[in-house]
Amino acid sequence: MDPEEFRRAGYAVVDWIADYWATLGQRPVTTTDPPGTVTASLPAGPPEHGEPVAAVLADLDDLIAPQLTHWQHPAFFGYFPANTSGPSVLGDLVSSGLGVQGMLWATGPAGTELETVLLDWLAELMDLPERFRSTSSGGGVIQDSASSATLVATLVALHRASGGRWRTAGVDRRYRVYASTQGHSSIEKAARITGLGTDGLRPVEVDPDTQAMCPRALRAAIADDLADGIVPAIVVATVGTTSTTAVDPLPEIGAICAEYGVWLHVDAAYAGAAAVCPELRWTHTGLRYADSYCFDPHKWLLTGFDCDAFWVADAAELVEALTVLPEYLRNAASESGAVIDYRDWQVPLGRRLRALKLWFVLRWYGAAGLRAHVRSGVALADRFATRVRADDRFEVVAPHPFALVCFRLVAGDGASAELLARVNATGRTYLTHTRVAGRYALRLAVGSPQTTSAHVDQVWQLLATTATDLLADRPG
Amino acid sequence: MDPEEFRRAGYAVVDWIADYWATLGQRPVTTTDPPGTVTASLPAGPPEHGEPVAAVLADLDDLIAPQLTHWQHPAFFGYFPANTSGPSVLGDLVSSGLGVQGMLWATGPAGTELETVLLDWLAELMDLPERFRSTSSGGGVIQDSASSATLVATLVALHRASGGRWRTAGVDRRYRVYASTQGHSSIEKAARITGLGTDGLRPVEVDPDTQAMCPRALRAAIADDLADGIVPAIVVATVGTTSTTAVDPLPEIGAICAEYGVWLHVDAAYAGAAAVCPELRWTHTGLRYADSYCFDPHKWLLTGFDCDAFWVADAAELVEALTVLPEYLRNAASESGAVIDYRDWQVPLGRRLRALKLWFVLRWYGAAGLRAHVRSGVALADRFATRVRADDRFEVVAPHPFALVCFRLVAGDGASAELLARVNATGRTYLTHTRVAGRYALRLAVGSPQTTSAHVDQVWQLLATTATDLLADRPG
Repeated sequence: MDPEEFRRAGYAVVDWIADYWATLGQRPVTTTDPPGTVTASLPAGPPEHGEPVAAVLADLDDLIAPQLTHWQHPAFFGYFPANTSGPSVLGDLVSSGLGVQGMLWATGPAGTELETVLLDWLAELMDLPERFRSTSSGGGVIQDSASSATLVATLVALHRASGGRWRTAGVDRRYRVYASTQGHSSIEKAARITGLGTDGLRPVEVDPDTQAMCPRALRAAIADDLADGIVPAIVVATVGTTSTTAVDPLPEIGAICAEYGVWLHVDAAYAGAAAVCPELRWTHTGLRYADSYCFDPHKWLLTGFDCDAFWVADAAELVEALTVLPEYLRNAASESGAVIDYRDWQVPLGRRLRALKLWFVLRWYGAAGLRAHVRSGVALADRFATRVRADDRFEVVAPHPFALVCFRLVAGDGASAELLARVNATGRTYLTHTRVAGRYALRLAVGSPQTTSAHVDQVWQLLATTATDLLADRPG
Repeated sequence: MDPEEFRRAGYAVVDWIADYWATLGQRPVTTTDPPGTVTASLPAGPPEHGEPVAAVLADLDDLIAPQLTHWQHPAFFGYFPANTSGPSVLGDLVSSGLGVQGMLWATGPAGTELETVLLDWLAELMDLPERFRSTSSGGGVIQDSASSATLVATLVALHRASGGRWRTAGVDRRYRVYASTQGHSSIEKAARITGLGTDGLRPVEVDPDTQAMCPRALRAAIADDLADGIVPAIVVATVGTTSTTAVDPLPEIGAICAEYGVWLHVDAAYAGAAAVCPELRWTHTGLRYADSYCFDPHKWLLTGFDCDAFWVADAAELVEALTVLPEYLRNAASESGAVIDYRDWQVPLGRRLRALKLWFVLRWYGAAGLRAHVRSGVALADRFATRVRADDRFEVVAPHPFALVCFRLVAGDGASAELLARVNATGRTYLTHTRVAGRYALRLAVGSPQTTSAHVDQVWQLLATTATDLLADRPG
């Protein structure tokens, strides 16, 4: 495809996306067709000869788009959002077009330096501790996801806990990872990947009211383990748990980590973005204790997946843990010690220039625009929670400091699960569920920049009328 | 940014890329400015208020593009290529615009099914063993890179070697990973990440002529280790090593793995793509023994980074090793057992729809177009090697079955290193280096679809004249 063919086809694809976004609100949020529908619609093998882009776009319209779950739909309220935005898409398009692979500073100098600067910008915007900045001992890097950030933090923590022996001798299975019972599944996955096994994860009890980690339980777990010859390596505290957005108390947890010399990683994958707003920055009190921290601009900061922002307080230690240096990667810039080679800050070797999409987002919206987006989400969630509270068939089951509301039918788990199934089957919205203290709850997470108060009111109306039908259908 | 603003700005970005590609050949391949140049040119913090896309594109022109290493430049011959192409960029643009996060089948049904089908298409195109197909016991998945594929293969191999205890009890440091001394650095990194440590990697000698793994040395290493109570868990064989594109002898290695019950992972990150051409498919002889296999369409198959195609022969075992199931990810489709949830096939939880860029590439080029691209690379590398051989100041130092040629000045390591430094400093090309049997060698890897015989001849001319100057400058 030559540049002029690309230009013409590129306009057509841009048009396709603009039209998709303009009409997204009229589509069903998800498909109700059974598994195998798309497979059956596709040829059994690749074409022998090339086809025009128009043919692919036609199949995109007919075969693919109707069979997606539309995460950018204004009535998509599932999981945590994976927001994107026009400027993010455009920044990523530039990255794809440049096709620069930034594993080393030398393989894409501007990409590396832009990433370092942008992570410092974000640190300033969120008022993160000084030591996370590249101008201090630390620095930031873009990971694909908070899962990978947790994995990397665990690896460096094991390196530190072992006094450096881990790199060569391997992991000592007496090491432990601590997280609340509400910590993300990626913490267990990291324990498994790093060779500690699920047994290497010590789940710490939460306060039943807040669903946040109980510091007293953490202290007791560490003390018990030490008495048994077990070595506490890392505590993963969560700011905004996936289930209910509970915020673990960092000041108390951090003090315990400092006392026992345990690595503190703070997983703020979803809720970290809220810290762009000073009035929501209380969640970061105590962050000065953290050795590493991450949040996902791809969740609530208008930047398309994948973009997790991860910081460490001691960059040298991170590089020491992860670096492997074959001859074919040696170069003068790396050996000068004057540059960052981000390959040593992550699991894979290669990397895209994901900084470009973040740059386009920060420039287009500005700090003020990002704050407005976060505040809009919080306000819409409040609006929804108010409606839930005003209907005595429903209850809100957890605090909702951000843009997620967890709620259920007072009638119980079966009715609540049935309500979710019925509203999702309409295709008019998409919610997901969780369990809070063992009881079934629906989750409504606001995030799309297209979501307005009308969408929130519509989904509430749908829930309320569906509940009426459902409760009338039930015996007794 | 509303859809109409996106449309206008999107055209501008498409134009920017088309113009970049059209003029790429006239740019220096890399910058010679010192580290810190870009950092110094950027503001200290994010803007408070938003800016138009035009302002960002102006900075892209002035501050970023001149400070990159241009991987798509027709005279970029470094590392292994990271090819992209127009259709790949457009497919990725659709993916960014859709913003669907495909962790579960339910969160993007068409994305998951398209990926499964495309990996089957690739398996057909390359004539991979039947058991890697989703229609058999196995299946394929897109990873970000071959590093991650090696890591995932190692994890499942540990799971198998432990009889399933690894998931909960953690890794036993008596397990070993085997790879040739020429295996990729990601194998050592995987040993470290999985908790085996560098000590867990057993480097196996290579044949000094071919640089390929010596099966007799592998057998001896395994037998010795077993006698010492060590447990061989995985052999990573390479088809196309990074240093010289050596091809490990899969039939012999596979037979040894089968005899001892050791997982065989085949890392064909770069050279696997050659198998789209029947005459280059000899590299896959013996692949029937493999438990897992990967290659990177992002290296030599016109698909932008990141796109590694990874297959396993037993998909159920992979999922068993990696799955973690919190309540908030439960859904009816997963529980039916009728769908693939790709989150369980990779390290992170979330994922982009990378299948779309691969789909656009396979449709635009067709099988015939992909074969033509691979054959062009091989022919251009042959052309270059012929010129090197015809100049008795130079020597080709390893077989070059694909599109990489390793060569050096007969005058020795110092002269060869100086030659690389001087030609790269001109900005007219970009090569990298390696060591072969301890001796310094330059690497020229052909890959960009824009590279023609004229570019290859020009870089040869530059090398030859620079060598003349350099050898004249040297004492004696």
